[in-house]
Amino acid sequence: MRALTMRALTLDDNQLLFSSDHPTPVPAEDEILVKVTQAGICETDLQLASGYMGFSGILGHEFVGVAQSGPLAGQRVVGEINCNCRVCPRCQAGLGNHCGHRTVIGIDRHDGVFADYVAVPQHNLHALPDAVSDDQAVFVEPLAAAFQINAQVDIGKQDRVVICGDGRLALLSAQAILLTGADVSVVGKHAAKLARFASLGITTQLVSELGAASTYDIVVDCTGSTSGLPLALRLVRPRGTIVMKTTVAAHHDLSLAQIVIDEITLVGSRCGPFTTAIEALANQSVDVSSLITHRYPIESAVEAMKVATSPDALKVVLQL
Amino acid sequence: MRALTMRALTLDDNQLLFSSDHPTPVPAEDEILVKVTQAGICETDLQLASGYMGFSGILGHEFVGVAQSGPLAGQRVVGEINCNCRVCPRCQAGLGNHCGHRTVIGIDRHDGVFADYVAVPQHNLHALPDAVSDDQAVFVEPLAAAFQINAQVDIGKQDRVVICGDGRLALLSAQAILLTGADVSVVGKHAAKLARFASLGITTQLVSELGAASTYDIVVDCTGSTSGLPLALRLVRPRGTIVMKTTVAAHHDLSLAQIVIDEITLVGSRCGPFTTAIEALANQSVDVSSLITHRYPIESAVEAMKVATSPDALKVVLQL
Repeated sequence: MRALTMRALTLDDNQLLFSSDHPTPVPAEDEILVKVTQAGICETDLQLASGYMGFSGILGHEFVGVAQSGPLAGQRVVGEINCNCRVCPRCQAGLGNHCGHRTVIGIDRHDGVFADYVAVPQHNLHALPDAVSDDQAVFVEPLAAAFQINAQVDIGKQDRVVICGDGRLALLSAQAILLTGADVSVVGKHAAKLARFASLGITTQLVSELGAASTYDIVVDCTGSTSGLPLALRLVRPRGTIVMKTTVAAHHDLSLAQIVIDEITLVGSRCGPFTTAIEALANQSVDVSSLITHRYPIESAVEAMKVATSPDALKVVLQL
Repeated sequence: MRALTMRALTLDDNQLLFSSDHPTPVPAEDEILVKVTQAGICETDLQLASGYMGFSGILGHEFVGVAQSGPLAGQRVVGEINCNCRVCPRCQAGLGNHCGHRTVIGIDRHDGVFADYVAVPQHNLHALPDAVSDDQAVFVEPLAAAFQINAQVDIGKQDRVVICGDGRLALLSAQAILLTGADVSVVGKHAAKLARFASLGITTQLVSELGAASTYDIVVDCTGSTSGLPLALRLVRPRGTIVMKTTVAAHHDLSLAQIVIDEITLVGSRCGPFTTAIEALANQSVDVSSLITHRYPIESAVEAMKVATSPDALKVVLQL
């Protein structure tokens, strides 16, 4: 029997609050209750805590847990975050992640995973093979988002790709794109963070040391900041592609004339294929576990959120 | 023998000036002198006159004229506006319009066509068939830019396309896209301008009467204003495409989060295929001559530029 209350980190009116007696969610008819084992803090969580999208409720959407009922009962699972209606034309066309009726776990009108339990639509769950550890599994959601770049943009061995940003998503995106055989480099602000890319065999450059550029075929903005797009526009060649990978609530203030003059293509990219990410983790073709720099019990979630904003933090994990 | 001086409209330090004794250009080795017959005023000319790109020299890039020497001597010609080096890697790769060494006729460090004579690289010239009148020919450059949309974006019969803007480029773009078989509609601010679209069988809507939207597969921004992108973002469906067709010098001030959330693709689009435009005019598959609302002798070019900014002007033509 599940307890009536549980531990949870909530966001309400831009205030983070840990509670040890938050009501345990009651799953809807198509939902499964999942006992969360570990959860990861993501840039979007930090943006939400700053007021982005006006979310209130339990935060968090990167998780691994154990299904409490249904066909996967007792198995380790991860879950896709878009809870769609499955019947509208977009859902029928395979665009469930863009369902106009969707809620999003921990992001938009659906309680999240920084808690003992989360209610997840049954069709959003994926069972994990034994080859994928809990430490790896907590990266399935962001790694799937990284693989979405490969799914949306045709990247080949002949392409020169540069990632803007040296944080969590940049590390996952760089590794996903390396699997295409393309030449991948990264531009960032922090020498210490860039060292992690160098150890993966990726060429690194400090933003402050960039020369005149405009030579890359594909530029991926993982900065999570409004400084990303102007930087990407400096780096991309005429007729090149910029992939916008992170949502930024703040307004941009820039001229977009270069997009027209240089016939640049901008591609917005969000959630991606879980099966691809699970396979890559099972095959060990992507290194994620070493990205965990901090672990906190859920009781210290408020402090963990603060630590996640510091430059020396990569993935901060909450344990339940 | 050409005269040593000629009539010309120049822009210098944001001041327009008509002169009847401007030096006639001396063509470089690979250039041909063209006697201009008619020239069209374009949105870009108006932007340049407002200080965009800091251009100084003879304005104008839409023209028809007669080649004065070379293999096309004595023939009616139009000319592509990007003067490229023909030897750099981009030129060799067929991306001459993006040559890093290029000048652009009437736009960037190359005197333009609002004058009796213009010097044009020989390989930029296209001879006109008899089936294309001078009134049609003055539209070859902007119509080619419209056809560039079809060249860059895969548009099919099943697509719902909407054009933002009811001006010159919108009318050409709508007609170019109609040839793909797609469903085309237009959203504009001026009922009188929209009537021209309606007469082409295109559904029209006033911006002020738009409801909740987000349903179009492809949105083409021909507004020539920073209001175009926010409007396009209202109209495009998730995973849809926005074609940015006009350069706007002013800064945008908006959040681009929707591009990521809805995985929108933005495509910058500039100059296009002259041969496609000439063929379409020769076949009468596009109506352009009726778009000429005003004609002025070159001596009245300053006034003509002013008239071109008024809402009731479509194409303003200068005659030489």
